Amino acid sequence: MESETGAFLEGPRLEIAGAAEGPLAGLRFAAKDLFDVAGHPTGAGNPDWARGRPLPARHAWAVQALLDAGARLVGKTVTCELSLGILGFNAHCGTPPNPAAPGCLPGGSSSGSASAVAAGLADIALGTDSGGSVRVPASLCGLYGLRPTHGRISFEGVCVQAPSFDTAGWFARDAGAFARAGAVLLGEPAAAPGQGPLLLAEDAFALADEAVQAALRPQAARVAALLGGAPRPMALGEPGELAAWGSQRAVLQRAEGWQTFRDWIDRVNPRLAFSVARNLGIGAALTEAQIALAAALRHRVRERARALLDGGAILCIPSTPFTAPPLGLPLHALDALSDRIGLLTSFAGLTGVPQLSLPLGQVAGKPVGLSLLAWRGQDARLLGIARALAG
Amino acid sequence: MESETGAFLEGPRLEIAGAAEGPLAGLRFAAKDLFDVAGHPTGAGNPDWARGRPLPARHAWAVQALLDAGARLVGKTVTCELSLGILGFNAHCGTPPNPAAPGCLPGGSSSGSASAVAAGLADIALGTDSGGSVRVPASLCGLYGLRPTHGRISFEGVCVQAPSFDTAGWFARDAGAFARAGAVLLGEPAAAPGQGPLLLAEDAFALADEAVQAALRPQAARVAALLGGAPRPMALGEPGELAAWGSQRAVLQRAEGWQTFRDWIDRVNPRLAFSVARNLGIGAALTEAQIALAAALRHRVRERARALLDGGAILCIPSTPFTAPPLGLPLHALDALSDRIGLLTSFAGLTGVPQLSLPLGQVAGKPVGLSLLAWRGQDARLLGIARALAG
Repeated sequence: MESETGAFLEGPRLEIAGAAEGPLAGLRFAAKDLFDVAGHPTGAGNPDWARGRPLPARHAWAVQALLDAGARLVGKTVTCELSLGILGFNAHCGTPPNPAAPGCLPGGSSSGSASAVAAGLADIALGTDSGGSVRVPASLCGLYGLRPTHGRISFEGVCVQAPSFDTAGWFARDAGAFARAGAVLLGEPAAAPGQGPLLLAEDAFALADEAVQAALRPQAARVAALLGGAPRPMALGEPGELAAWGSQRAVLQRAEGWQTFRDWIDRVNPRLAFSVARNLGIGAALTEAQIALAAALRHRVRERARALLDGGAILCIPSTPFTAPPLGLPLHALDALSDRIGLLTSFAGLTGVPQLSLPLGQVAGKPVGLSLLAWRGQDARLLGIARALAG
Repeated sequence: MESETGAFLEGPRLEIAGAAEGPLAGLRFAAKDLFDVAGHPTGAGNPDWARGRPLPARHAWAVQALLDAGARLVGKTVTCELSLGILGFNAHCGTPPNPAAPGCLPGGSSSGSASAVAAGLADIALGTDSGGSVRVPASLCGLYGLRPTHGRISFEGVCVQAPSFDTAGWFARDAGAFARAGAVLLGEPAAAPGQGPLLLAEDAFALADEAVQAALRPQAARVAALLGGAPRPMALGEPGELAAWGSQRAVLQRAEGWQTFRDWIDRVNPRLAFSVARNLGIGAALTEAQIALAAALRHRVRERARALLDGGAILCIPSTPFTAPPLGLPLHALDALSDRIGLLTSFAGLTGVPQLSLPLGQVAGKPVGLSLLAWRGQDARLLGIARALAG
């Protein structure tokens, strides 16, 4: 069902030189087509989004920050439609290639950003992550990717999807460029890894393919050693609770998404992939009671995150339950894969804690990411761990 | 929200000469892009419908019948997406003009067919009518249009939407060409109007704008006089029952539509206007109990139709509650208009009786149709009434 395209938007490549000097001088970066670039339409992966909107008068905050630090913008990248989607296909633009797993989906919604970096067409790339849109393509394309603490990096000049979930993050192939970009975007250099237990969430690992678990467990041990111990097996939730988090996260995110897009939909009746329109329609049909129940549950998950992580522990889970799925699957199969991914991405989404995906796993030649989660605000520490692991 | 287009599909006009002799020699006809024309893709108003399907090997039955009778095919016409829609806009192709009401919607889903005939670009045009798709554009564009008895005209080679509702019908500007085409498509010449009461459904008239009622009542009196009497005021349903018919018809039509399109959607995840995807999603979410309730209700409406019409009476209602709405309305306003139209179109849809829309009303320079309904099989009699009224 997916037609293929490149990582970048079609048409002449948008290039903007960065400042002459700066910590990112010499690095090329790409930006997901959710980020404003002054004077150019922001398409958001939908053919009707930009129509009738004024051109952005200024760059998104994160684009400006990277330019000011000396990085060169080398293009805007394909995104899943309206950032709604986790596997990386787009019914309008096509699906960017996964250079690390040819013939497979790249993951999304920051699909083109991950694809461009994995192909070496850019050194770093900006993405957004509301429901997993940095973590998932980082895992499937074999990249470093951070979903920062919610609210940590300015979302100014970026298309909103679900405000209580939206974050701006980035990708890189190597830990050095990843940390350098992070220092600029976080306003803080990579910090020391520090000590502290590595909590290995057995219930989260159990949701992944066995081969993925087997590939990631030795890497978890490496991380634990760096932190001064051995992985500490534990359960993230009560039995079945991760599944509940997945569905409650979906309720809240879809409810907010409907609020974001409803006026535009009413005005424009836009062209959308069936899957995207259906999910928006589900958001429209949610009752206040369903939303209130999910919001109450989010409060409990946040308390759980504080109890686990506030003392300095690092939590370890697979970034995705599987490696990149092949192209050409029917929608019901894609839906099942998306739901399964959501079981692992929802903890950070609901709690706002930062989640780093490390390109440490490999199964049958395809990458899969190991994720580390820390308490809110410890983004720079996660970057320090990434850099230390890379040696 | 509607971009505009012509009545015909974009690109080189598809033209096929008819038989050298025949009852329709000299007439030009157009066919809605739901009808197969051998060797040309049938697009059904959606950019992903034809992809991956073999080209039609033969003409649809109705296309072949008109060609065999000597009419010349002069083009295929724009349709609402997948024939789902009653107002005539299409988010992909654009909206055909309404030559009878410039700046207004043409009605649909046989939008381009009505537009082409109203503009004089064709003498007759084939359409389909599942929920009103011939009757509504006939009314809004000021044309003759027939939704025939369900099953009367072969649907072979036409894209199915909801089999228990789908019919193939046609439009014309003048009663003569309308009846000549009907003789070919019905296999029977226009019959004598006959005698019999004209039942004037006051509950259906009350659903129309007052100006529409005022414009149509004198025309109803003309019809009654032709049938040998005066209009006989009556109520088509119990109080509130027409609203119930509208929603039950929508339940059944959407449930069947989902069955029709679900496998294609699963395979292709097609691009659809939000409004179309949403309505398909509503069909997908219907429960067996809802569908069973609506089916039981349809049985009662059919008994009512038999009791009213089987003895030779003709039923008279407004074709639409209003004249052509302006372009540019937001989706919630379009939804409200569609729902209101559905209150008048559902009786024929649920019962399968033929419904003729006559271009007899005019409000502030815009046309509105008067509809006559007869018992199943009396299609040729309705054509005879149309011809007799035209003098």
